[in-house]
Amino acid sequence: MISGSGLYLPPKIERSEDIARRINRSVDWIHQKSGVFERRVSDIDVDKMGAHAGKEALNAGPPPDLILNASGVPRQTIPDTSTFYQKEMGFEGIPSFSIHCTCLSFITAFHVASSLINSGSHERVLIISADRGTLGRNYDEPESASLLGDGAAAILVEPALDNEQSELLYHTMSTWPSGSDLTEVRGGGTRKHPQDPNTTKEDNLFSMDGPAIYKIARKQVYKTLLETLKKTGLKRESIDWVIPHQASGKAVDAYVSIGGFRREQVLETISQFGNCVAASVPMTLSLAIKDGRIKRGDLLLLIGTGAGLSAACSLIRY
Amino acid sequence: MISGSGLYLPPKIERSEDIARRINRSVDWIHQKSGVFERRVSDIDVDKMGAHAGKEALNAGPPPDLILNASGVPRQTIPDTSTFYQKEMGFEGIPSFSIHCTCLSFITAFHVASSLINSGSHERVLIISADRGTLGRNYDEPESASLLGDGAAAILVEPALDNEQSELLYHTMSTWPSGSDLTEVRGGGTRKHPQDPNTTKEDNLFSMDGPAIYKIARKQVYKTLLETLKKTGLKRESIDWVIPHQASGKAVDAYVSIGGFRREQVLETISQFGNCVAASVPMTLSLAIKDGRIKRGDLLLLIGTGAGLSAACSLIRY
Repeated sequence: MISGSGLYLPPKIERSEDIARRINRSVDWIHQKSGVFERRVSDIDVDKMGAHAGKEALNAGPPPDLILNASGVPRQTIPDTSTFYQKEMGFEGIPSFSIHCTCLSFITAFHVASSLINSGSHERVLIISADRGTLGRNYDEPESASLLGDGAAAILVEPALDNEQSELLYHTMSTWPSGSDLTEVRGGGTRKHPQDPNTTKEDNLFSMDGPAIYKIARKQVYKTLLETLKKTGLKRESIDWVIPHQASGKAVDAYVSIGGFRREQVLETISQFGNCVAASVPMTLSLAIKDGRIKRGDLLLLIGTGAGLSAACSLIRY
Repeated sequence: MISGSGLYLPPKIERSEDIARRINRSVDWIHQKSGVFERRVSDIDVDKMGAHAGKEALNAGPPPDLILNASGVPRQTIPDTSTFYQKEMGFEGIPSFSIHCTCLSFITAFHVASSLINSGSHERVLIISADRGTLGRNYDEPESASLLGDGAAAILVEPALDNEQSELLYHTMSTWPSGSDLTEVRGGGTRKHPQDPNTTKEDNLFSMDGPAIYKIARKQVYKTLLETLKKTGLKRESIDWVIPHQASGKAVDAYVSIGGFRREQVLETISQFGNCVAASVPMTLSLAIKDGRIKRGDLLLLIGTGAGLSAACSLIRY
């Protein structure tokens, strides 16, 4: 069960007016293309951002017995970011590792955490997603540059008590490598090593073919949704909240226009925070827990696409 | 159960004689400090290396239903390497993600795969570790530069048949962030971004304080080992094979000199392949399966340390 949640919003707000000139596009163009009106820009690094959210999720309770980093971009190549969250939270000795599948890292980590808890391996798993996408913006690629924002969120997962129904009811994921070049940061690893003189600035920054992804994602996410409804025997109206990855304004809208959900069911944060890579799903979830929209017993559908190209969907009883 | 295994050894062999001049040390110094006599240097990237091992592990059987990348350094920042293994193996639609905790990525991924199989989520999980550490060698740091080698291995995990005992019997891990700066590649992420003019060559290469790690690791691994023996009620002599991470010659020897195992129990590949980061454990495992040393029913102890600093240990019935 989700027993705690935390959110870190960097205080610095960048409005679309502030970025319009840098990408040589109008504010209206940005609003229409990305759906982002403002985003946060962090002055602190992902380890500190994640630790803020992590501490809030622990809510002064005992330390977790596992820390999972579920982010899109790491703090550094080695060690993985989970170590640095632990360091910033002042712990020692807690097993820590990272789960990475870009924007779907949180949905995947939640599935792994649930499995580790159900098998009795762990009892208090802290999942942290922290992304600082604004560092990787390529201002020569206006659409993706206007999309990205910074933020962090954390979710604490514990075994459900006997009288609670809170659980992960269904999870599915698919990856289609034919779409692997549609969303990329080609640098940072062995392919375009930072020390390789042939590695370009563009290789080290975020690159995305928005329209091509939308075309594939629309079809694949719809298929994933139909499969989830069929396998769980649920109808759209039984789902209390759809929490999509905030890929773009258009992508979030598609859960209404194509997915067939009522607008009130679909949680949207892209207009306010932009696309925060892996942090978008847990940020949206944490915000709605915090403000009381999500209540115990609610059925949550976490769904989205990530670089890969992957699609994933989880049905959770809160 | 482990139902398949694969190994990829790059054909190009670099002997310690070949690297001695580049690091300004004698061959004897290399042999004594690192325990590495030769290592492989790959001309192909990690995706292709991993796909070779992955195909061998599948042994012309049906496709896996999950591909886990369990490596130390990725091919690129986004998407994660699992996507590229899948692409190279010619598959589409198989869920894929990465598990990262540097040299312990394989041991951790095996635990996660076992949990996902036991919970019924998956039935055929292909874990691939591929590392190309020679790309990240810093020739101004002779000890770590002489240690690193390239290689890949894959393990296929499936549910055990009713009449088999093959299973993961015990797993434990701990991470101590107080040792986070002892093994690092500081670049490649948000902390020392490749586009940041302050990022140095050293930030983008492997850096390791061998003696300091050995001092902590010796103590912590010994504690982990004693805890594992105590919790499982096993004695050293019941374990057929100790498969340590091949951190250094000295680190592997310590399982005999400090750990109390007989030399014949401890599998050693560091002299021949160097420290292949996350690939060392599955390479050593795959090699001993391939040459018939490891037999069905054997008790395997997978153990080691990784950047973090972390220690982990798994007891597996093959």
